[in-house]
Amino acid sequence: MSAGPLPVGLGDVRAAQARIAGVVRRTPVHTCAALDRRAGRQLFFKCEMWQGTGSFKLRGASNALASLPPDARARGVITHSSGNFGAALACAGQRLGVQVTVVVPEGAPALKRAAMEGYGAALISCGPRLEDRAAACAEAQARSGATFVHPSDDPRVIAGQGTLALELFDEVPWLDAVIAPLGGGGLLGGVAVVARALRPGITVLGAEPAGADDAHRSKAAGQRLPLAGPARTLADGLRTELGVHTWPLVRDLVDEVLLVDDEGLAEAVRLLLGRARLVVEPSGAAGLAALLRPGAAGRPLGRRVGVILSGGNIDPATLASLLS
Amino acid sequence: MSAGPLPVGLGDVRAAQARIAGVVRRTPVHTCAALDRRAGRQLFFKCEMWQGTGSFKLRGASNALASLPPDARARGVITHSSGNFGAALACAGQRLGVQVTVVVPEGAPALKRAAMEGYGAALISCGPRLEDRAAACAEAQARSGATFVHPSDDPRVIAGQGTLALELFDEVPWLDAVIAPLGGGGLLGGVAVVARALRPGITVLGAEPAGADDAHRSKAAGQRLPLAGPARTLADGLRTELGVHTWPLVRDLVDEVLLVDDEGLAEAVRLLLGRARLVVEPSGAAGLAALLRPGAAGRPLGRRVGVILSGGNIDPATLASLLS
Repeated sequence: MSAGPLPVGLGDVRAAQARIAGVVRRTPVHTCAALDRRAGRQLFFKCEMWQGTGSFKLRGASNALASLPPDARARGVITHSSGNFGAALACAGQRLGVQVTVVVPEGAPALKRAAMEGYGAALISCGPRLEDRAAACAEAQARSGATFVHPSDDPRVIAGQGTLALELFDEVPWLDAVIAPLGGGGLLGGVAVVARALRPGITVLGAEPAGADDAHRSKAAGQRLPLAGPARTLADGLRTELGVHTWPLVRDLVDEVLLVDDEGLAEAVRLLLGRARLVVEPSGAAGLAALLRPGAAGRPLGRRVGVILSGGNIDPATLASLLS
Repeated sequence: MSAGPLPVGLGDVRAAQARIAGVVRRTPVHTCAALDRRAGRQLFFKCEMWQGTGSFKLRGASNALASLPPDARARGVITHSSGNFGAALACAGQRLGVQVTVVVPEGAPALKRAAMEGYGAALISCGPRLEDRAAACAEAQARSGATFVHPSDDPRVIAGQGTLALELFDEVPWLDAVIAPLGGGGLLGGVAVVARALRPGITVLGAEPAGADDAHRSKAAGQRLPLAGPARTLADGLRTELGVHTWPLVRDLVDEVLLVDDEGLAEAVRLLLGRARLVVEPSGAAGLAALLRPGAAGRPLGRRVGVILSGGNIDPATLASLLS
């Protein structure tokens, strides 16, 4: 099925793990009997909301920065992000002494903007469309000579995200399936590389918002398709689309992309909080939301499923509105 | 300072640990750099919101039931509880085949009532005063012959609660201080027994609501004093008072009782949720609230402090109102 060599392999993820060992935290795996009953499966939650900066993105950001040559570090880096990747890159930059600039779409959560500024990043606002982000990045880059680091479509970033799957399989080797939220595909791509290499027969699933379903449509068409229009989803971290590096990984290594709607995301956030006492943002709860869709419990997706809870950066006001 | 032998010793706690090993979960210890900066100390959070039934009380309840002779098990047990102990006793009873009846004060959180019923407990409603609870218990006990198990003032319960401190010191042996929420004193008493035995020089602190400050006043008076009136605090799990077994432990083994108000409790819940991504109910956050009181950061209470987060059973609606 593959049209050529994949951009990331298990060796890249293992190298990333060694490179970022002192920067990222090994996150725990939680279980919750009440949610197991609800899902009709045994769930193993990989808790990346406790990763530094509150999301898995510190892994890929750290690996990208740690891979830069000294002259590039001196010129700084730039990215565009709704928040989690920007905070992660800013945090990694602060530790390594690299100036970080983040292009932030208007409407990004205040908590995420504050986190980026807290780590010393310079913020540039832009419009809500993906083209707006790219244009603002290019303009700032032309001025400073900063290196662009894409939040998801970069092999160093993908390899960094995959390190969480190394930890997950180390702790729970007997998984039948693994599911991760799917936006730009950096997380799912990295997880899929590790899962397929360590357990070839495992089921690899993506959980994608129905209002930003480019990956679902791309898989159906057999070719990479862009977002059909502005993304409409509660999951602010999943409003992006697959890129040239993440698409082949999703095409060749992912069994199925399950769609989730806003009501399902909100219910997953509520259940994680009320039943498992875990604080997860809507984007981070997409995997559980997919497993709780009507009809999902009866499908043969595996008895023991690793569920990546990818982040916990939710505004208290947003959380309050989801709870009431 | 002691007027006689204490009702619980380290040996009782170790025996309880062996007795309940298959029933309770070893809970993790979390850290959060942002909260360390806020408190001016290094904090080690013992996460009992992930204990079965969502609070530490499963420990004491399990130890009490596992200690009963067969004929007493057959007649069932009864307790009074605003919720967490009732749920814990019901859960332990369900596993051991013991019928559990719980006298619940009117106004107890709906989530807690539902949890008790979910474990098969029979509920009896009573008025809000402590005397109301005792009268309803006595009446039901006379009918059924059930054994009364006090939520806190019972040596078997105290010993069971202390098992969490054995785990904490096993994982973080170098603590300078430990702080636990203080209501009836079962938790703090059990923690104090272990802390003093394993590290005689440690500082042992209680965190008590200003609106239910019988322990604070009792320590000052050198004798056990009752609540001055109906308890007025957001911390629904701490509206009780010291008993004949817990008072000597608090008197002899606890260095100081720090008072917390509702605003401090609410802020601690918000910070744990927003900064550490931990779901803790107001009662469970009392220890952190005490360490964040104005002026607390400058006091010599210890650099490395174990903070017992004792439960996470908060109604989503209550949490939403605290967040907004």
